[in-house]
Amino acid sequence: MMNHHLEMINRYAGQPLYRQLSDVLETRLAQRAKPGDKLPSEAELSQEFEVNRLTVRRALDELNQRGLIETVRGKGSFVATPRMRYDISAGRDASFTRTMLELGHRVGITVLGSEITESSELAAELRTDGELFVCTTLRLVDDEPWSVTMTSIPTARFPRLAQQWAGDTSLFDYLHDNHGVRMQRASRTFAASLAEPAEAEHLRIRVGAAILEMRGLNIDEDGIPVAAVRHRFRGDHVQFTVDLT
Amino acid sequence: MMNHHLEMINRYAGQPLYRQLSDVLETRLAQRAKPGDKLPSEAELSQEFEVNRLTVRRALDELNQRGLIETVRGKGSFVATPRMRYDISAGRDASFTRTMLELGHRVGITVLGSEITESSELAAELRTDGELFVCTTLRLVDDEPWSVTMTSIPTARFPRLAQQWAGDTSLFDYLHDNHGVRMQRASRTFAASLAEPAEAEHLRIRVGAAILEMRGLNIDEDGIPVAAVRHRFRGDHVQFTVDLT
Repeated sequence: MMNHHLEMINRYAGQPLYRQLSDVLETRLAQRAKPGDKLPSEAELSQEFEVNRLTVRRALDELNQRGLIETVRGKGSFVATPRMRYDISAGRDASFTRTMLELGHRVGITVLGSEITESSELAAELRTDGELFVCTTLRLVDDEPWSVTMTSIPTARFPRLAQQWAGDTSLFDYLHDNHGVRMQRASRTFAASLAEPAEAEHLRIRVGAAILEMRGLNIDEDGIPVAAVRHRFRGDHVQFTVDLT
Repeated sequence: MMNHHLEMINRYAGQPLYRQLSDVLETRLAQRAKPGDKLPSEAELSQEFEVNRLTVRRALDELNQRGLIETVRGKGSFVATPRMRYDISAGRDASFTRTMLELGHRVGITVLGSEITESSELAAELRTDGELFVCTTLRLVDDEPWSVTMTSIPTARFPRLAQQWAGDTSLFDYLHDNHGVRMQRASRTFAASLAEPAEAEHLRIRVGAAILEMRGLNIDEDGIPVAAVRHRFRGDHVQFTVDLT
């Protein structure tokens, strides 16, 4: 007796076969799988459920799109770690570190580089024609690489920033403790792209893996721009929710 | 005399070489390039600007990340079409068609499939234990494939929806004209992933290209859930902005 007889696919039900199969697999994943587990091959699934390979492939596509598995070409399909959901409309303080700590996570920040620059497409957005301090960091959550983040701050207002803020601590805390500035999120823009070689290495993903880019402007409580941020997140780690009501 | 002498890279300036090169290339693209134009090869750029290949590669990575060019491995780098920016916090009506028409674009919708289903992970979100009408469409903007969109609607409230709404017209307009319901955006979630084979074909992109997924719930003016949407956008076509002030 085969062990899948309780989850048999019904060829006469209203649902398309691939949908039935993806539902069965979803239940199975929820019951018996943990992130990183390898799924049976297409051929094995095709044999077990007595459906053709195309049906198996569409079912796996479904699970991929829903973020439940990750298919790596030439290697097979693996149970995915669910993406962490991050609500950017709950509270306005622009502090990644504080938010993550509140959610019970450990945060690490490594400086990848920094520079003082005058030319930047961000100057207008930051309402400055002076220098910017630009710091690129790798952020880790629970020791997992999370994002490569570029933060640009006009130096006119915070002249000792480059000397005093190492970049590997919370910018929010630095500005709050040293300048009494409470940094708030003003806008966020979301785009999808693919990992470039350098960031892929930092994020420990393959070149061409999915990147969720979030750019934005932070302001102080008077609405004056304080910092422009550009985060390149591992696409498999995070999703952002906005409440519009 | 070579024609790049006016945009020479200065080896003694404070900026790293790759940044200088990406700035020079950005200016050049803005002045003389149009979307789809092929950039010179890494070898050619390396020779022209007298910098090593690694510097060229970092400069191109910069331009890739900023969405100005698109590098296809084995084929070279091409001038990218800037992503359209779509503000989801400006106005609350959940009508893609109306928004796009207001912005001066043509919208096309092709039905890829539809079904009535009972089992769905969306049932709880839609506060129903009854049937859902699920319609998958391909959306086009100015005749370019834009997104593969799945819309799920409880049938209990709109029993004739499956018969009356073909799927290739605006759902917002259908609900407004036939039921007096003004569909509003309640929440939106953003994630990045990679194109699956079936959607890649519909969106005319390669398998593994960047996909920006936006999921969300639409409600009526009393806050009652009306529809759940899941859009899989071409990552190179669109970006979404939220104003949080």
